[in-house]
Amino acid sequence: MTQIARSLKMDGRKIVFVPTMGYLHEGHLSLVREGKKRGDTLVVSIYVNPAQFNEQCDYEDYPVNLDRDKELLEAEGCRILFLPSSESMYPSGFETTVHVSGLSKGMCGDSRPGHFSGVATVVAKLFNIVQPDIAIFGEKDYQQLALIRRMVSDLDFNIEIVGMPIVRESDGLAMSSRNARLSEDERMLSLSLSRALYSAMKIFEEGSCDAQRIIEGARGKIAGGIEIDYIDIRDAATLKPVDKVEGDALLAIAARVGKTRLIDNTILRRN
Amino acid sequence: MTQIARSLKMDGRKIVFVPTMGYLHEGHLSLVREGKKRGDTLVVSIYVNPAQFNEQCDYEDYPVNLDRDKELLEAEGCRILFLPSSESMYPSGFETTVHVSGLSKGMCGDSRPGHFSGVATVVAKLFNIVQPDIAIFGEKDYQQLALIRRMVSDLDFNIEIVGMPIVRESDGLAMSSRNARLSEDERMLSLSLSRALYSAMKIFEEGSCDAQRIIEGARGKIAGGIEIDYIDIRDAATLKPVDKVEGDALLAIAARVGKTRLIDNTILRRN
Repeated sequence: MTQIARSLKMDGRKIVFVPTMGYLHEGHLSLVREGKKRGDTLVVSIYVNPAQFNEQCDYEDYPVNLDRDKELLEAEGCRILFLPSSESMYPSGFETTVHVSGLSKGMCGDSRPGHFSGVATVVAKLFNIVQPDIAIFGEKDYQQLALIRRMVSDLDFNIEIVGMPIVRESDGLAMSSRNARLSEDERMLSLSLSRALYSAMKIFEEGSCDAQRIIEGARGKIAGGIEIDYIDIRDAATLKPVDKVEGDALLAIAARVGKTRLIDNTILRRN
Repeated sequence: MTQIARSLKMDGRKIVFVPTMGYLHEGHLSLVREGKKRGDTLVVSIYVNPAQFNEQCDYEDYPVNLDRDKELLEAEGCRILFLPSSESMYPSGFETTVHVSGLSKGMCGDSRPGHFSGVATVVAKLFNIVQPDIAIFGEKDYQQLALIRRMVSDLDFNIEIVGMPIVRESDGLAMSSRNARLSEDERMLSLSLSRALYSAMKIFEEGSCDAQRIIEGARGKIAGGIEIDYIDIRDAATLKPVDKVEGDALLAIAARVGKTRLIDNTILRRN
């Protein structure tokens, strides 16, 4: 991949990169389609990065279907698929990590210790290998996207970061590779996540700016049997907590449905 | 600098990079001369990086003479000098750091908390800005050089790291910008550092492999009035402590002469 990237750069090609953990769904494919539009050469990576899993069982159970992923990517016209091995990514003696201190705290950072350092480190590695001009990430992992923007700015990567909107199932559930692990009952329960967001958004649109009130509105809609990790409202740019929604704010939710941890979010914005 | 680097890469130029903290001496100039030989375009940076100083007074007293540095670099035929400001390197909200866990421990890592993370972070930034094919560092900062090699490998920077031998004054003192801060008496005392290394090397060359014995031989030569920080023998590649010198080993010394902290080292190697 290093050699391919080098020769693409020499030819003056504009490389667009979509890093994924595979088990692709329409959310990933929306990134791939955007990538095709934005550059000359699209590179997609599939790598289930052990360093960003804080629970071994979540890593081991992460869904994999490489044959299907390849078919989907070919159908989209993606010609370069990068599939690093863990032996090549984390060889014996590996000991370097990248930390983004503030944005790794709160929300998913609190419930997933080490997760964001694992993300920042692997993304820095992938950027150095793939040498993209543009990299595209989904807004479902909103905190991750904010952290990557910060890392790119702080470490002077000359890369444009593009965020793409959440893609949802027709019933509102945010697409996630982890949805494949839900039982039929859990799948039904999971709907209350997006419904809680819609309900909270309605409270906001009816005029309330009080973060706590909006959060409680969301909390009231979460189905029994779902273990809420957090429901939080943060400044959409800095991810600092806000009491009053004034500028753009992120309303984010994380919850465990059975063994599966799901996240979802939306932006609260006054028109 | 980002734009210059990008256009140099587009032209297929091989960029060689020599990062420095300025107040240049013959040690730096040996890196510059090596750099001229190895590539098409040489970039030298001068930046006294606050993040790698663990003592505020050491940072504030770090010697500066930019006019002289420019003259020296021009005389060597260096055409690109990168002089970043701290406002551009660490703008408000900066929060990303790079850590190399094992190689930051022991020796200078123990006496200079935060130093090596500051080094790794600024070097990662400079690499991303300057986009070198080759980067050259001095072996006087041996632990720093080992740590940078590790970071480059771990984070997949596509950069060849070249280490250059220590350059010494005619009386044996390793060249250092900090030597400028020594009083005449301190300058005399400082000579015992390199003499201690020579003396220890002699013990080794006469057949002893016992690390402790070699270290004590060095310690015995350090002048009174010098505060030894450490004298250590480590594997030259991994910097792991060794009891017996079998393969190549680093013999390293750090000491405070008055207010000035000096380091020196040599490699113990059986022919």
